[in-house]
Amino acid sequence: MRKISVGILGATGMVGQNYISLLEGHPWFEVSYVAASPRSAGQKYKDAVKGRWHLTADMPAHLADLVVGDANDVSAAVGKCDFVFSALEMAKDEIRALENAYAAADIGVVSNASAHRGTVNVPMLITEINPHHLDLIPAQRAANGWKKGFVVVKPNCSIQSYMMPLFALQRAGFPVSRLIVSTMQAVSGAGYPGVPSLDMIDNVVPYIGGEEEKSESEPSKIFGRVEGGVIVNDTSIKISAHCNRVPVSDGHTACVSLEFAAKKPGIEEIIAIWEAFRSVPQELGLPSAPERPIIYRREEGRPQPNKDRDAGHGMAVSVGRLRPCPVFDIRFVGLSHNTNRGAAGGGILNAELLKARGCLG
Amino acid sequence: MRKISVGILGATGMVGQNYISLLEGHPWFEVSYVAASPRSAGQKYKDAVKGRWHLTADMPAHLADLVVGDANDVSAAVGKCDFVFSALEMAKDEIRALENAYAAADIGVVSNASAHRGTVNVPMLITEINPHHLDLIPAQRAANGWKKGFVVVKPNCSIQSYMMPLFALQRAGFPVSRLIVSTMQAVSGAGYPGVPSLDMIDNVVPYIGGEEEKSESEPSKIFGRVEGGVIVNDTSIKISAHCNRVPVSDGHTACVSLEFAAKKPGIEEIIAIWEAFRSVPQELGLPSAPERPIIYRREEGRPQPNKDRDAGHGMAVSVGRLRPCPVFDIRFVGLSHNTNRGAAGGGILNAELLKARGCLG
Amino acid sequence: MRKISVGILGATGMVGQNYISLLEGHPWFEVSYVAASPRSAGQKYKDAVKGRWHLTADMPAHLADLVVGDANDVSAAVGKCDFVFSALEMAKDEIRALENAYAAADIGVVSNASAHRGTVNVPMLITEINPHHLDLIPAQRAANGWKKGFVVVKPNCSIQSYMMPLFALQRAGFPVSRLIVSTMQAVSGAGYPGVPSLDMIDNVVPYIGGEEEKSESEPSKIFGRVEGGVIVNDTSIKISAHCNRVPVSDGHTACVSLEFAAKKPGIEEIIAIWEAFRSVPQELGLPSAPERPIIYRREEGRPQPNKDRDAGHGMAVSVGRLRPCPVFDIRFVGLSHNTNRGAAGGGILNAELLKARGCLG
Amino acid sequence: MRKISVGILGATGMVGQNYISLLEGHPWFEVSYVAASPRSAGQKYKDAVKGRWHLTADMPAHLADLVVGDANDVSAAVGKCDFVFSALEMAKDEIRALENAYAAADIGVVSNASAHRGTVNVPMLITEINPHHLDLIPAQRAANGWKKGFVVVKPNCSIQSYMMPLFALQRAGFPVSRLIVSTMQAVSGAGYPGVPSLDMIDNVVPYIGGEEEKSESEPSKIFGRVEGGVIVNDTSIKISAHCNRVPVSDGHTACVSLEFAAKKPGIEEIIAIWEAFRSVPQELGLPSAPERPIIYRREEGRPQPNKDRDAGHGMAVSVGRLRPCPVFDIRFVGLSHNTNRGAAGGGILNAELLKARGCLG
Repeated sequence: MRKISVGILGATGMVGQNYISLLEGHPWFEVSYVAASPRSAGQKYKDAVKGRWHLTADMPAHLADLVVGDANDVSAAVGKCDFVFSALEMAKDEIRALENAYAAADIGVVSNASAHRGTVNVPMLITEINPHHLDLIPAQRAANGWKKGFVVVKPNCSIQSYMMPLFALQRAGFPVSRLIVSTMQAVSGAGYPGVPSLDMIDNVVPYIGGEEEKSESEPSKIFGRVEGGVIVNDTSIKISAHCNRVPVSDGHTACVSLEFAAKKPGIEEIIAIWEAFRSVPQELGLPSAPERPIIYRREEGRPQPNKDRDAGHGMAVSVGRLRPCPVFDIRFVGLSHNTNRGAAGGGILNAELLKARGCLG
Repeated sequence: MRKISVGILGATGMVGQNYISLLEGHPWFEVSYVAASPRSAGQKYKDAVKGRWHLTADMPAHLADLVVGDANDVSAAVGKCDFVFSALEMAKDEIRALENAYAAADIGVVSNASAHRGTVNVPMLITEINPHHLDLIPAQRAANGWKKGFVVVKPNCSIQSYMMPLFALQRAGFPVSRLIVSTMQAVSGAGYPGVPSLDMIDNVVPYIGGEEEKSESEPSKIFGRVEGGVIVNDTSIKISAHCNRVPVSDGHTACVSLEFAAKKPGIEEIIAIWEAFRSVPQELGLPSAPERPIIYRREEGRPQPNKDRDAGHGMAVSVGRLRPCPVFDIRFVGLSHNTNRGAAGGGILNAELLKARGCLG
Repeated sequence: MRKISVGILGATGMVGQNYISLLEGHPWFEVSYVAASPRSAGQKYKDAVKGRWHLTADMPAHLADLVVGDANDVSAAVGKCDFVFSALEMAKDEIRALENAYAAADIGVVSNASAHRGTVNVPMLITEINPHHLDLIPAQRAANGWKKGFVVVKPNCSIQSYMMPLFALQRAGFPVSRLIVSTMQAVSGAGYPGVPSLDMIDNVVPYIGGEEEKSESEPSKIFGRVEGGVIVNDTSIKISAHCNRVPVSDGHTACVSLEFAAKKPGIEEIIAIWEAFRSVPQELGLPSAPERPIIYRREEGRPQPNKDRDAGHGMAVSVGRLRPCPVFDIRFVGLSHNTNRGAAGGGILNAELLKARGCLG
Repeated sequence: MRKISVGILGATGMVGQNYISLLEGHPWFEVSYVAASPRSAGQKYKDAVKGRWHLTADMPAHLADLVVGDANDVSAAVGKCDFVFSALEMAKDEIRALENAYAAADIGVVSNASAHRGTVNVPMLITEINPHHLDLIPAQRAANGWKKGFVVVKPNCSIQSYMMPLFALQRAGFPVSRLIVSTMQAVSGAGYPGVPSLDMIDNVVPYIGGEEEKSESEPSKIFGRVEGGVIVNDTSIKISAHCNRVPVSDGHTACVSLEFAAKKPGIEEIIAIWEAFRSVPQELGLPSAPERPIIYRREEGRPQPNKDRDAGHGMAVSVGRLRPCPVFDIRFVGLSHNTNRGAAGGGILNAELLKARGCLG
């Protein structure tokens, strides 16, 4: 099978580098185009990221000499790739316009940027939760006058560690009405250079700009229904998020207390629901789908970032400490890898679903 | 004025060392006796803590040659000190029995141990909140047949960062009904050697044995009323605590969401209440009382452990990020120094209140 | 091919756990016996390490129910394994006696303990440097009256990051006369619980008990020659080691300045020597041998623990910053994974060489 | 006594903030003028550093409303201050020109910048070592045509932890010929935002741009002699420096091996020399001079950053682990506070010496 050609916008940043690293050896996709800001354009990829390649894995040799394109120049990508992963870092308005321009040029956009998350006909995908939101693509194309292009986004990395456990409960017949969550988020979520080390040595920072707002609003869209060519948000869950930055490289941890709207499952019943949870990516056998999307850890004091972030190749959510909550009904700890499932890995899984659904060609 | 002679039980441990360091130059108290386990007994203090003195400040020279007594031998303390700070580390039953034995020998006990926290006629003091619980001392003495002895304890360090802000609101006429808190606690709370560094490098541990139970039950006693020679707990606030260990040396941080029982004050009203809050220790001018017990920080992202833990010489609570809560009414971040206000400093302040109330002699 | 049965002494400790994890799926060896202190003996392995399993990888399921033997009872191992990896933690005298007892019972010992490092007829192996020291085995057996048993040890983890680069230069005709090294060592080198986090948050500790002595004496034996049934140390290199503990989980870094005894190679010549370096394990294609034992990094500021420790599956040494030394001749930075190449991985590679040399059966 | 008016150039950066904090309550100096880049000029100081005030101590209230001047505009400083501390961050050429311009305007410059370190008639002061270099000031003024102005600099923070111990030995009659040092440097040395936390969590970086060159060349000037209106460098010591960045907030640690040129003192003799060491700042009773400039710690594993950096109010050098070196003669560990003695504190002490020597007015 000929592999699908992939471009990466914002290829020199941290998320872009993660895409390049994770796509190495991918069975369906191969990177054929990299683009970044005009400052990097024209240089070989290896030169453009010199001194800024931050991954443990070495840069794939066959990409080192690829010449970086100007991400603002859509025409440069035409013919070079079938779709792009967008890890652009610009003003939101500019990103929206640029992602639309790629779509208009028949180049689908699988985006990590937050610019289009609020656009009512843009699916915000967590593949295990709302794969049916891809049904919007025809309406999206019609509304924009695009033929083959599309824009699909992923939600903020901060909510990945509890959205799937939450959804599994709702799907099993236990809708949730209220949720208070406190996160301890890894510094890689802020990119590179990102968080200064003077703020992270012997310290935590109980604030991440914009993160609480995203954490509280995005679930409504993800749990929304498709109707009339747009997503109608589900506002049945009230969420309060406290977002904290802690001295951890990768892996966001969340402490969740929640209240059920009606029926209240027992502790072991919930664990059974989580351990049995499978969804569309598993059924379709998507290459990056974790075999077990939710891994429940019975050990005291788990999950922990340095022990559990790589579960399911960094694509599974690890959960532990499920116990009754004296204020609401239950509480637990969730953890997911923010730069893998929460960023590039999640984007790749989105693209795999798009491919399986026939949206990529 | 002749200073009051003080003994320290458990003097070689981390809390004991903190007592010794904080009492250096104290205007009312002077350390005249140190005791520890039989293993240390008989050695000079400097030899007993050799290789285990963990404070920045050097050991006070005049205590270095003090011979360590056996904490189990109450008679050894008689005549050497007027009262003791107990930082004993043993089984709870043993601590209870031993603290009682000191009290029976006319040596008052100001304890950091948790053993007596559940005893109904033992005050669990936060000096700004429940100084009137000292009214129990006569009843306590009567019930036990003690003449001059007593036992007073302090609560767990994990709740210090939000109990005072909570109390200030309740005292101002805004009782609280429900509270969900997630803490990020410093490793010094576990003593020395305490938490292994392999668990704290690039990691957080979302579990501290016994800490959530204490955090949820102790406020009831602190807010309780004295009646019939015992404390009758106030169970009007429901609390859910998520306790986490993070790579911070000193300073516990708490993210709090809470619901008011009736009237709901506005944001600026609350800040004004907190900034104006003063209580008995301030009115009495106790030497260790912070001038402003609650310090509100308006900067984004404060309070933070490495910037705020030493506020008010480590005795003030720093609060910030007060904002509406989408689920309950308000939310905020609190921070206090766990080994100072939360341990030895809090114990010393308790003793100062006892002195001011005439309980020490 | 039937796999060779392996026992692990000290299987519940950190090095023991690493052995178990690294041997999972090994092409030649399979773990058939685990032993530890009498305290753990009789329990299932999963119960004996409960709350102390510190690896990211889950415990291999097929070993979880293995009953732990008493490491002091040699007879319990007989018939259960062909040889053992020793990660015993006891007094040196006891370890020496016990390792000898296993050898006397026809069970070869590949040891991580330091007890036998000074024994003149016990090879201290770094497989790429002194594989010929295995020639001692017949003499060792004869001297002890052993038939099939043997004892082979590995050196301290602190020297692994520069011994191979040093040896490569000496083998290429550039003997070294003097070397001053300063290490920054990971906390995993001290096992678990090991280094208290209070000593590693916002701190370094410029001292590791016994480490400098080992670092200065062990190279003499490794570079020694076999003569008359013993190793005669090579004392031609003078070494001064400064050993420091830093807040790094895995990966020891070393800053080396060295002086050549005679000829002085140029910078690019040295890099070429290192990059071309291959030795017996590579020639034999041993399963755990890194393809390139020495990896030279040309980037500024490399090697670094979190980026380079896993090079060559944690078995390669990464080197960088080769430059002239204003005092001696050259200086560079070396890095190796202390619990992989420096401990269990190195032990397994030693066993693979023993197998290839016919010493295991 | 009227206090001397002080200006701070680069007042909004980390070093500038440290100056402001350390000068609070200074007996001789008071901050009367703050200047920074044109971007900050015209704002109140509190607004210019908003979100960037990084110290534990709150900003002095009386400076909060001071309007920030443009550091490039020398005339704005005239009449507002008697001399300035320069913590400018610009190209070296620009700094040199600007510092000269202040001097030409009769405003003395006590600089933390490296720009003038190589200028032959600019003293590079460590007050305990080369106070006599101030004898150059008249020649400096004459050469530049300045009346009251001057430029004095301090050396790099990386060498502070061993220069004083080294000098004490030389002054006592034990000249040193060769020295190899490996440093573990705190992140505050790189300012704010400085070192990204992704490089400091579970990591060390064995490289700091330009630091090794400075460490190797600056001692020559500090030990130099004044002759013919310039400093003639002393090149009798050969130095090799390995500079590393470690996850420590404040406090540079150095591991030193050194060789004596002639006579070799014994271990206890050296300790006695260090403990007895006093120099001009102590004799003059300068306000910021540490009572004991060198503090020897006999405990195993000391000095350590989090325990010793604040010794002597952050102005003393802590030394430990003195022992024979198998390659050279002796080795030891030195530690000093890089943002206090190594930056702003050192600058203030320089100014105090200038005042005592009559150079300030």
